[in-house]
Amino acid sequence: MIYLDNSATTYIDPRVLKTMMPYLKEKYGNPSSFHNKGKEARDAVEMARKQVAGVLNCAVNEIIFTGGGTEANNLAIQGIIKQVQSSKSKVKSHIITTKIEHPSVLEVCKYLEKEKLAEITYLNVDKYGIIDLKELVKSLRSETVLVSIIYANNEIGVIQDIKKISRVVKKYNNNILLHIDACQASGYLMMDVKKLGVDMMTINSSKVYGPKGIGALFIKRGVKIKPIMFGGHQEDSLRPGTENVAGIVGFGSAIELLCEADYKNEILKVGELRDYFIGELFKRIPKIRLNGHMVKRLSSNVNVSILDIEGEALILRLNEKGVYCSTGSACASGSLEPSYVIMALGVPYEVAHGSLRFTFGKKTTKKEIDYVLKVLPKIVADLRAISPVKIKKS
Amino acid sequence: MIYLDNSATTYIDPRVLKTMMPYLKEKYGNPSSFHNKGKEARDAVEMARKQVAGVLNCAVNEIIFTGGGTEANNLAIQGIIKQVQSSKSKVKSHIITTKIEHPSVLEVCKYLEKEKLAEITYLNVDKYGIIDLKELVKSLRSETVLVSIIYANNEIGVIQDIKKISRVVKKYNNNILLHIDACQASGYLMMDVKKLGVDMMTINSSKVYGPKGIGALFIKRGVKIKPIMFGGHQEDSLRPGTENVAGIVGFGSAIELLCEADYKNEILKVGELRDYFIGELFKRIPKIRLNGHMVKRLSSNVNVSILDIEGEALILRLNEKGVYCSTGSACASGSLEPSYVIMALGVPYEVAHGSLRFTFGKKTTKKEIDYVLKVLPKIVADLRAISPVKIKKS
Repeated sequence: MIYLDNSATTYIDPRVLKTMMPYLKEKYGNPSSFHNKGKEARDAVEMARKQVAGVLNCAVNEIIFTGGGTEANNLAIQGIIKQVQSSKSKVKSHIITTKIEHPSVLEVCKYLEKEKLAEITYLNVDKYGIIDLKELVKSLRSETVLVSIIYANNEIGVIQDIKKISRVVKKYNNNILLHIDACQASGYLMMDVKKLGVDMMTINSSKVYGPKGIGALFIKRGVKIKPIMFGGHQEDSLRPGTENVAGIVGFGSAIELLCEADYKNEILKVGELRDYFIGELFKRIPKIRLNGHMVKRLSSNVNVSILDIEGEALILRLNEKGVYCSTGSACASGSLEPSYVIMALGVPYEVAHGSLRFTFGKKTTKKEIDYVLKVLPKIVADLRAISPVKIKKS
Repeated sequence: MIYLDNSATTYIDPRVLKTMMPYLKEKYGNPSSFHNKGKEARDAVEMARKQVAGVLNCAVNEIIFTGGGTEANNLAIQGIIKQVQSSKSKVKSHIITTKIEHPSVLEVCKYLEKEKLAEITYLNVDKYGIIDLKELVKSLRSETVLVSIIYANNEIGVIQDIKKISRVVKKYNNNILLHIDACQASGYLMMDVKKLGVDMMTINSSKVYGPKGIGALFIKRGVKIKPIMFGGHQEDSLRPGTENVAGIVGFGSAIELLCEADYKNEILKVGELRDYFIGELFKRIPKIRLNGHMVKRLSSNVNVSILDIEGEALILRLNEKGVYCSTGSACASGSLEPSYVIMALGVPYEVAHGSLRFTFGKKTTKKEIDYVLKVLPKIVADLRAISPVKIKKS
């Protein structure tokens, strides 16, 4: 089994699971309970908050735990619009985002647009997936309340220059908030919210060797947002409901492990493997295209389009060989349409249709990559020979 | 350590944890991934859905997994109002609920009221905590879209007659939806949604010996609601984001264990212990009052007011003796105000202030109860002697 779908989800690091186990067993208290059993759980949640805040270089009370990255993105964007509406209800807010956001940002924006709660500008990206800062500047308006940009894209791994984006936005109007979706960037790129100059940042446990069902939103002190759910006082009344203590504990330790020297070495190795893999793919498979930028790219991400073949067919054949990869985002799957991210690069429909995403993990080995390099060219040749698909937009 | 706060949260049954472990270890796939690793996770989620649907006697596609009971209540109530708004935007919807709901229902209703999205009727309860069906009937209107009632109350364990409520509501207008919050009822009361006659029902894993951070909403086929979060297609597009697979698997097996003969015997035993405990408390402590109904009551719940003492003081002293209980809802804690649930019973302020909740679990023993019966009267006598509080509303 060769798992090259780490952007869909990573496994839980055994050291992380070990820290979770007491909270799945004897330390089962509700953090809101006054007694010792509650305190034990409350302390664990606050310890995890400290761990996350440490890595993000922010204050502990700037971290809100959520049920995942999707919920954190929803809370950030819906929360700001709700806040603006409650203060100056007559002004229609303006949000700037990009055409290559994760569905949990794009679909929130489309909802706000449809409900006439906000006007949205979807920035274009160039052929490598990078936004144009001049277009960003031109899009800024007096009604702009939020700029939401994906730090590193989940499909093509392209990295936006958040520091520059922050400078440009804040220069125009310091009150405009900058939110970034750092779910895929976490563990690969700098996560210091002060250095990045962001007001809100989404992170997700299940992309960094932590458990599923846990995410967090960094909200800079002074930034006010409204909750999207109502109930108990938990998480500063921004995310009600009994805390998933074991999940939060796991997330805290997973985030902390990203800072270890061993992990940093593993990430370097991943980048080398990626470059080797891309190079070899181009040598061994004709009519292939790299999607995204060569340098401004997550070291874990390989996204290629193999012409004249549908991505799904390749995935299924690779699956039979024990190689697990994807066509793009797991959260955008279930649709037969080609990836909107790849389409945004301005490539023809048939190029987008043949996209294939390999996302490496910290334990990915050269041996595994060599196996893929051995089986994939044959699968491609077979598929092209047996069923030479001429994909056209229907 | 004597844990009598099972309504705040239960421990995870070791058999439940055992079913979760593979999904915290090697079976870490994202259910949305096409490959075998994804299918393995997808199958597990669907198996859990089948387990839940089996116990609720509904179809698998009538179950939506959420991040907990609070989220399920929010999804049900906000979701209906959003749905109504999208179809007939000019009519202000009317919701009927009670004064003794969990904060995740009450606070949603208050939000909808404040935002002028709905008018809310909060039904009174009698001195035992039971709603008056005549008042319910009188409250029904042509604009009523939803009736949301807590099946068994989280603080005083009082049980409402959901079957009768359903008949009354549906007789008035079959289109009015009935949602019940069955988080505390689960495992103690009948959970067959058809027999109950409900359109939506909230359940929660961490109250039934399953993991925290997982709940579910039953939505009857044909009932349309809108999501409160946006993103991927997961959970019929009603709850986007990568599924918490291990949590869902645990919830599924926890729900199934509730049907076992052993569990049913344990619950019977819990009821006997409760009656013994209440009887002895009244014998051993003067000036004490039982909150809630004597018969229409969860067999796990004991809620008493001990006059002239603050509940918090009792909890702290019991905590020192290794006995863990609460003043009321964990989700309503953090406030120094007396419980709004107890206040709704029409008791004086000082009675509400001295409330103490013991909630038994399936492993609670007579030996544990006897220990509490030994230490509590002395604590009460000491507190009354040392600091004879005359609690008055400030």
